[in-house]
Amino acid sequence: MDLAVNGARLRSDIETNAEFGAVDVSDGRARTVRTGTPANRRARDHLVDRMEAAGLEVRTDAVGNVAGRWEHPSATGAAPVAAGSHLDSVPEGGIFDGPLGVYAALEAIRTMRDADLRPDRPIEVVCFTEEEGGRFASGLLGSSVASGHRSVEEALELTDSDGVRLEDALETIGYRGDGRFDAANWDAWLELHIEQSDRLETAGVSAGVVTTITGITHCEVTIEGEANHAGSTPMSDRTDALAAASEFVLDIERAANQLVAEESPTAVGTVGSVDAAPNATNVVPGRVQLGLDVRDVESGSMNELVDRARRSLDRLERTRGVTTTLSRPFDLEPIPMADRCRDALHEAGDAHSVETVELHSGAAHDTMHVASVTDAGMLFAPSRDGISHSPLEWTDWDDCAAATTVLTGALAQLVEA
Amino acid sequence: MDLAVNGARLRSDIETNAEFGAVDVSDGRARTVRTGTPANRRARDHLVDRMEAAGLEVRTDAVGNVAGRWEHPSATGAAPVAAGSHLDSVPEGGIFDGPLGVYAALEAIRTMRDADLRPDRPIEVVCFTEEEGGRFASGLLGSSVASGHRSVEEALELTDSDGVRLEDALETIGYRGDGRFDAANWDAWLELHIEQSDRLETAGVSAGVVTTITGITHCEVTIEGEANHAGSTPMSDRTDALAAASEFVLDIERAANQLVAEESPTAVGTVGSVDAAPNATNVVPGRVQLGLDVRDVESGSMNELVDRARRSLDRLERTRGVTTTLSRPFDLEPIPMADRCRDALHEAGDAHSVETVELHSGAAHDTMHVASVTDAGMLFAPSRDGISHSPLEWTDWDDCAAATTVLTGALAQLVEA
Repeated sequence: MDLAVNGARLRSDIETNAEFGAVDVSDGRARTVRTGTPANRRARDHLVDRMEAAGLEVRTDAVGNVAGRWEHPSATGAAPVAAGSHLDSVPEGGIFDGPLGVYAALEAIRTMRDADLRPDRPIEVVCFTEEEGGRFASGLLGSSVASGHRSVEEALELTDSDGVRLEDALETIGYRGDGRFDAANWDAWLELHIEQSDRLETAGVSAGVVTTITGITHCEVTIEGEANHAGSTPMSDRTDALAAASEFVLDIERAANQLVAEESPTAVGTVGSVDAAPNATNVVPGRVQLGLDVRDVESGSMNELVDRARRSLDRLERTRGVTTTLSRPFDLEPIPMADRCRDALHEAGDAHSVETVELHSGAAHDTMHVASVTDAGMLFAPSRDGISHSPLEWTDWDDCAAATTVLTGALAQLVEA
Repeated sequence: MDLAVNGARLRSDIETNAEFGAVDVSDGRARTVRTGTPANRRARDHLVDRMEAAGLEVRTDAVGNVAGRWEHPSATGAAPVAAGSHLDSVPEGGIFDGPLGVYAALEAIRTMRDADLRPDRPIEVVCFTEEEGGRFASGLLGSSVASGHRSVEEALELTDSDGVRLEDALETIGYRGDGRFDAANWDAWLELHIEQSDRLETAGVSAGVVTTITGITHCEVTIEGEANHAGSTPMSDRTDALAAASEFVLDIERAANQLVAEESPTAVGTVGSVDAAPNATNVVPGRVQLGLDVRDVESGSMNELVDRARRSLDRLERTRGVTTTLSRPFDLEPIPMADRCRDALHEAGDAHSVETVELHSGAAHDTMHVASVTDAGMLFAPSRDGISHSPLEWTDWDDCAAATTVLTGALAQLVEA
């Protein structure tokens, strides 16, 4: 069956959505859509309109997740299949990150209806609350509730930096609904998202089937030396915390490159933040704090990189006389995608002559949470130059349509009971 | 002639002064005496009382510098010799940095009077305004005016972070005087100060004669890479500004150590400040700014170290693809002390059986400014463990007295017309 989607209809939805929270920038297209803002209300209202126009039954749960359900009269009463993403953005983010996945799921249903498909299972188009984080939580807020990682009550009490509660912010925009969408009740879940890296663009392929979403570990490292006068302290009398920290940064880079070369090509290690004290040009740094981010598709290599970090600090204690600490306050395991979801995506690509390749996701997505309670799959569309979270984020409309066709074909397979 | 000072009288002055702005700390003795504060007024008032009690004629100039003059009736009318230091402190600073030099100069006059000395020249005890900086300027404020590096008008218009003008702050505490003390009119100048390093303590010597105050160069370095997602950017696709900055920090440390070993044992190079952007654990750093401090007793080796910094950046541009800039917004030449002042200090040590050694000053002092307009000398007393700008700053009372005796003997020689 030909389930090629209507690319113009999809593009129109994404372009209309791009107007909500649009920011005038010199280059590219920017939007700022934070949870619970007027821009967020307009984006949600438009989605609800479009879902109702497509004949979907729309509900909002207590934490503002929105779902539109399509159930064919001939359905068997089996559990639904769900697909979607998010509509919120980072400040001055791009127009594809999130909206592509939401409107692609809606376009999939419209395409199935146009093709007179009669699915055994209902399909739900889901828009999760605050995937990007930054106002109420650090991200993946709505999916954390839908997957049972965070209770509704806990979520509603989250506050922004001005003390505004999530519940009140949702009430204000009319999206504090009832109950909790439970992702465990979904038979399967698919999310289409832009890649945020340039592997698909480089390969010239429109659809990437995610094998695994990498685990993420954050380590907080402190290196304590001795703050001293930069003029009156001879080189030989120093315990310079920044010089020690510099060795650590280079040790991490070297260890990650070595892991990539010898054991795990997907491993990454990043020292992303550095804070020195007293941080004055004329004082030898006495204390440095570093933030380390480690990701890979296997816990083993992540642990190996953290071990290398600890060994680097041990060495610096011996060679430079600093004292160090390393804590690991944030740790998510790698999440493999379900084989049957991956297979469905590949087969849909084959059936519609859209080449697919396999790749991993180094970025976190709502699918990480959903995958802990049901079978989940994830599909990537190419990002020009790998840029995201930027007005320069771009995915060609043809690629949007091709990837959405793959999503549609996979959903059509999954809704056969 | 025996000019051994009265150590108990000196100690009493310093301990009384330590009460002004005293801060209760768990370890050591702290005081916070910022320019133009009530604590600064009390410290100045007490100094004026003590100078008047010693028979000195006290004046205050337009920028709050205070001088007490002693002129023996038999003086010949030749230009005065001056000595002193400052009474302000860094926040929670120690009790010796500054006050030792001011009260030592006063004690020198009292000792000469007790010994019935009849100097040909007048002697001025000088207390400079805001040596430490931090409220109105970056330091050496009063001496910058007395040496003509900054006009009275310019100084009075300086404002603190709340917009308070120096002139108004001085009016408030009653120390906005008239005119300008002109250091060029002094036949010679001596300053006793704590060492702020541990060379004298290690040598077991109570008095160090400064050969040169090192020059100071500050360089501002920027390293621009590419900010990227720490999860979705493979190790091989990164232009990590912090990894490049780390190589720079270690290059500077290595270059300074090499200069010390091969060319100039007094050279120091310090990367004291680091600011990364966006400085988030989960983003590859896109931009790093570094503050570099370079000091030595010769311009040649300072320039050599700055050249090495430039070469390090050139190399990083080639090897890591970053772009870099280096500016040199602050540059003070090394200041040698006058031979006749150094000789007078050594001879005074010999005459009073106080061993003296020669050393350089890596820290800046008011004497840097004064030395540009008249013959200047500087004497250091030992600092325990080299600690200063800290409640743990300490100089033994016996060392205070011995160094003050050397200062007194040198002044006695310099006031012979």
